[in-house]
Amino acid sequence: MRLQTLLGIELPIIQAPMAGVQGSALAIAVCNAGGLGSLPCAMLSLEAMRAELVSICAGTKRPYNVNFFCHTQHAPDAAREAAWQRLLAPYYAEFGVDQAAISAGPGRLPFSAEAAEVLEAFKPAVVSFHFGLPSSELLARVRSWGSKIVASATTVPEARWLEAQGVDAVIAQGLEAGGHRGMFLSDDLATQVGTFALLPQVVQAVRVPVIAAGGIADAKGVAAALALGAAGVQVGTAYLLCPEASTSAVHRAALQRQPATETALTKLFTGRPARGIVNRIMRELGPLHAATPAFPLATAAIAPLRKAAESLGQDGFSPLWAGQNTSGCKAVSAAALTRALMGLPTQAYIPIGTTAPSMASTTPVM
Amino acid sequence: MRLQTLLGIELPIIQAPMAGVQGSALAIAVCNAGGLGSLPCAMLSLEAMRAELVSICAGTKRPYNVNFFCHTQHAPDAAREAAWQRLLAPYYAEFGVDQAAISAGPGRLPFSAEAAEVLEAFKPAVVSFHFGLPSSELLARVRSWGSKIVASATTVPEARWLEAQGVDAVIAQGLEAGGHRGMFLSDDLATQVGTFALLPQVVQAVRVPVIAAGGIADAKGVAAALALGAAGVQVGTAYLLCPEASTSAVHRAALQRQPATETALTKLFTGRPARGIVNRIMRELGPLHAATPAFPLATAAIAPLRKAAESLGQDGFSPLWAGQNTSGCKAVSAAALTRALMGLPTQAYIPIGTTAPSMASTTPVM
Repeated sequence: MRLQTLLGIELPIIQAPMAGVQGSALAIAVCNAGGLGSLPCAMLSLEAMRAELVSICAGTKRPYNVNFFCHTQHAPDAAREAAWQRLLAPYYAEFGVDQAAISAGPGRLPFSAEAAEVLEAFKPAVVSFHFGLPSSELLARVRSWGSKIVASATTVPEARWLEAQGVDAVIAQGLEAGGHRGMFLSDDLATQVGTFALLPQVVQAVRVPVIAAGGIADAKGVAAALALGAAGVQVGTAYLLCPEASTSAVHRAALQRQPATETALTKLFTGRPARGIVNRIMRELGPLHAATPAFPLATAAIAPLRKAAESLGQDGFSPLWAGQNTSGCKAVSAAALTRALMGLPTQAYIPIGTTAPSMASTTPVM
Repeated sequence: MRLQTLLGIELPIIQAPMAGVQGSALAIAVCNAGGLGSLPCAMLSLEAMRAELVSICAGTKRPYNVNFFCHTQHAPDAAREAAWQRLLAPYYAEFGVDQAAISAGPGRLPFSAEAAEVLEAFKPAVVSFHFGLPSSELLARVRSWGSKIVASATTVPEARWLEAQGVDAVIAQGLEAGGHRGMFLSDDLATQVGTFALLPQVVQAVRVPVIAAGGIADAKGVAAALALGAAGVQVGTAYLLCPEASTSAVHRAALQRQPATETALTKLFTGRPARGIVNRIMRELGPLHAATPAFPLATAAIAPLRKAAESLGQDGFSPLWAGQNTSGCKAVSAAALTRALMGLPTQAYIPIGTTAPSMASTTPVM
């Protein structure tokens, strides 16, 4: 079945869920342009998630996607987190951060029965998962109300595993992709490959539609992904400068910096490898420092540094999530970008510097 | 100008030069099938190079490519190499290798006036370079007899630099590619990106034709690269099982191993990052061990271990060069593979296990 038929969308374009840099506003804009907008829930409280879902339903009548992480929540390890804070101590001193005030918040929550409870009232057309899938019980519950299930694979074995669990489509997440690697069967980064290598091998390995992700930034990229056998694409980075995204000022500036943006996989911000623009802490500690606590426990200790640095206009402690191809980042409306990805005529472009429309508020958990 | 017109070839397919695993036989077969066959010279003595060029001229009347490395040759560092040998000592003991017998051979030689002298008699249609370009004097000499100049870029700045030096075409070498990263303006691996990210950005940055490399393994991959703006493709890994390649038995076995091949960038075999299938020494020392001597001086100390292990049928100390997409590796004739990459009808396929045709001898320098 065509991906568009399966998901009830006009264009085979999925806006990648990007926790922390977008909420309902971006999702609504993409849905109304004919793509599949996504609401990332990993950093939302249940209340914030409900509010965002209400906003989406008010903003569009089209199908939308709701995305969850489904990692195993690690218990805090006091010794490891203390060691992590000792490593960060010189930075705390530099920015005058009071270590005693660091919260022990979880940073990111996995999909849960409570989240399913909230979700059931909305019965979204699509629910997507990152880091594998939730328990079969929870998965069956989501499926019971008719949502299509989509999940990320970073290797051929992960794609086969997801298909065996009955997902409706697989996202092949190439190494170029920004944000967290969805890897879940192995934590060996040597298993992670570029879109040109991953996509055709996943297409060959499974029967469900395959959605290409990683490095796709414009209509040529979409055409190339389709040539490699993708049924559709998931695009994230290119949307980061859209006024409907809530991308921070330092993050927007980093994305537009010349010369071309340099990214790396880093664990420093959350504990799991995720791709972001190389900044001060990644350069100084090394992006994969062994002392980083388990996901998502690394976040709490670094959050106050981010806040302090950003208040000075510095991006050195912020997760500047981005894929390797930032050439598609333009400060245009999400609708215009979505249509442009298909090579379709676009509505009027909103020039850089225009005030963003008001955004539905998103309350991060941390 | 179309790449085919520029290089005088029928198909926009360049067989990637792969030092150590192929010689004139593979180049001839690809040329006669309508692609551009390549002779890698980095591991050939001047005499062996001349003999191979004579073979090519006898085997085909079509244009061919001769490839050179152009690194700066580092002076041996006795302390560093001694430390490297100490690290390898347990392996020497295990395989009964006499450390006193380790040669100090350079492993791989850069392009030189002497090599140009040999080359001039043949005036190949195309000369390609890896690790930047030779001196402007040497480059002018190659250009003076009419050869087109092609070189590898792994970043947008490298592509711009090559264009400014007057190359006729640029190879955009995505991170998926097997063998040595051609990087030369930076040694920071964080600058290295996948083909989906690199190719369109290079196409945008330069006016000369761009040849895509990295992860391209079949006709769909070629179509995708062309959709991203490439004028042609360079394919290496897919040719490794062809009978005309001199790929070793352990290397062929590793390429066909299930589950899907896992690769990593490693410095262990030469001193520069190159992509190969993960094997014992990469796993045990870590693929980028800091003690590795400068390129190409790491080679000498590991060569006897490779020899000893291979004699026992083990692949643990061999450079098993391969890109991330090994799905195109088939034991078919290079002509059949070349035609198949363009989606053209192929000649009879040579089934796996058939004896390879006799190969022109290649005498490695080391």
